[in-house]
Amino acid sequence: MFREKIKVLDCTVRDGGLINNHDFDDRFVREVYKAVSAAGIDYIELGYKNSRKLFSPKEYGKWKFCDDEDIKKIIDGIESNTKISVMVDIGRVDLEDVKLAKDSPVDMVRVASYVKDIDKAIFHINHFAEKGYETTVNIMAISRALDNELNEALHQLEEQSQAKVIYIVDSFGALYQETTEFLIKKAKKYIKTKEVGIHCHNNQQLAFGNTIEAIIHDANYVDGTVFGIGRAAGNCPLELLLGFLKNPKYDIRPILDLISKEFIPLRNKIEWGYIIPYAITGIMDEHPRAAMALRKGKEKENYKEFYESLVSDEEL
Amino acid sequence: MFREKIKVLDCTVRDGGLINNHDFDDRFVREVYKAVSAAGIDYIELGYKNSRKLFSPKEYGKWKFCDDEDIKKIIDGIESNTKISVMVDIGRVDLEDVKLAKDSPVDMVRVASYVKDIDKAIFHINHFAEKGYETTVNIMAISRALDNELNEALHQLEEQSQAKVIYIVDSFGALYQETTEFLIKKAKKYIKTKEVGIHCHNNQQLAFGNTIEAIIHDANYVDGTVFGIGRAAGNCPLELLLGFLKNPKYDIRPILDLISKEFIPLRNKIEWGYIIPYAITGIMDEHPRAAMALRKGKEKENYKEFYESLVSDEEL
Repeated sequence: MFREKIKVLDCTVRDGGLINNHDFDDRFVREVYKAVSAAGIDYIELGYKNSRKLFSPKEYGKWKFCDDEDIKKIIDGIESNTKISVMVDIGRVDLEDVKLAKDSPVDMVRVASYVKDIDKAIFHINHFAEKGYETTVNIMAISRALDNELNEALHQLEEQSQAKVIYIVDSFGALYQETTEFLIKKAKKYIKTKEVGIHCHNNQQLAFGNTIEAIIHDANYVDGTVFGIGRAAGNCPLELLLGFLKNPKYDIRPILDLISKEFIPLRNKIEWGYIIPYAITGIMDEHPRAAMALRKGKEKENYKEFYESLVSDEEL
Repeated sequence: MFREKIKVLDCTVRDGGLINNHDFDDRFVREVYKAVSAAGIDYIELGYKNSRKLFSPKEYGKWKFCDDEDIKKIIDGIESNTKISVMVDIGRVDLEDVKLAKDSPVDMVRVASYVKDIDKAIFHINHFAEKGYETTVNIMAISRALDNELNEALHQLEEQSQAKVIYIVDSFGALYQETTEFLIKKAKKYIKTKEVGIHCHNNQQLAFGNTIEAIIHDANYVDGTVFGIGRAAGNCPLELLLGFLKNPKYDIRPILDLISKEFIPLRNKIEWGYIIPYAITGIMDEHPRAAMALRKGKEKENYKEFYESLVSDEEL
């Protein structure tokens, strides 16, 4: 699959940070940045732009806040054509914390939003766009979106927002490829002047397959993480995506080396990937929080009991 | 997805046996049989019917041979509607070893064959069919099959064989869903009086996605293994397949329990699953043998060097 318009965004440090309170050290983040740059990846996302009034720097590492000065230390001296992205959650950002793009190492701001918050998302998108950033909206929990409300949100984003990309986000890892196809075709129908993107979670080992499905139906922005790192089941593995995309600008080798040297040791310290309780929440189209709680306790391998507890908790 | 004609075959013990020389003990195999039966799975495959003239029982466990008496010990006293399957490799079976179906606990014989051996496969299929068995052919290494030769093989199987099911087998875990769709549609074009099936390997985390893809295009026989066990990257995880299929006759819970009790401990002893060298052979459409050799040595995590060695070995 070679389509020049396809852009790959690596969100290893941002999504991986959800497992360790965004507390990666500079050496590790520089190694990721170096490999992602050498692999020719288009964007790298380092974390969230959160307000220090809401989250304490004592509890969270620096990639919860993504100060420009911290980003400069990471990229200093490393040759790269990879653009820098940060994510913003609605209601958790101080807009005045964000400088003009021309004064910042950040190139892109991605705004995460549920369908219900799309008006606020548009306000944020346009604010950042006016400061000179590339912007996107990442529509979360898409597997729970009601059809008419999603249609309205897509229509508004097309008409009112300055977003460059509209991302479909399978937060719960619940989509199969037929629904992925349905959603991407729908987005392409409403979104005429912007690009469509996809961000998948890997609860059912479908993150890569659904990303391919989205590419087949003309999504041009795709997210991956090194060795699939990310909260709970993790994300679409970047190395598989590079193996699939035949664009000659990408080189899989720096990512393979990075996995050998950094991610195999890291995986022995923190957990993510194909783990049955996360598969169960994916199958049931649920947030993984109950499974994350289970994995911290003594019952962590009691899958049948966990499944039965979710079934009996289902809202009727 | 509920389609009454869909049949699920569990090949946990057969494909898992490829990692441990088919040396599972009776207690373990009985636990698998019990759970698979309770889950309502249609078929269970226990191993190969190999000749003792070619393979020594000193080197291999009993599931390399699948004697009727050994199978009887497994199923004795366990309530089940699950049919028993064994696999046969062309050139490795003594036909006289196989009794008439009416005198055997085995219900189905699956004949594994490359496209080039399809004439021999048809001879074997018809031999077993005449002994009263349900039969299938499993066309291996489908990602390497030449289009005209595959067409001819499918035509012959339709015209000359008594096979009940024609399986497409992605031996190298190399298929993406577009090629899966192409191959299943092709099989459905040639195969009019039999069913079409799929057996996927999980090198690129696409075994489940490609199995869904095949189901969408009307394959009715699908293979899975518990927790995805199988040689190298393993197979389509049975638990995910049951989560997807909405047929009320299937029950995921006994499989979840079996994973907790048997497969989590087993995975700590033998290796299978998403392991980068197997992903690399999948991406390159190669047999996993070089990756299997790598995993036994000291260089087992040297992914970039392994990738480069495969690239430089490519036949030009």
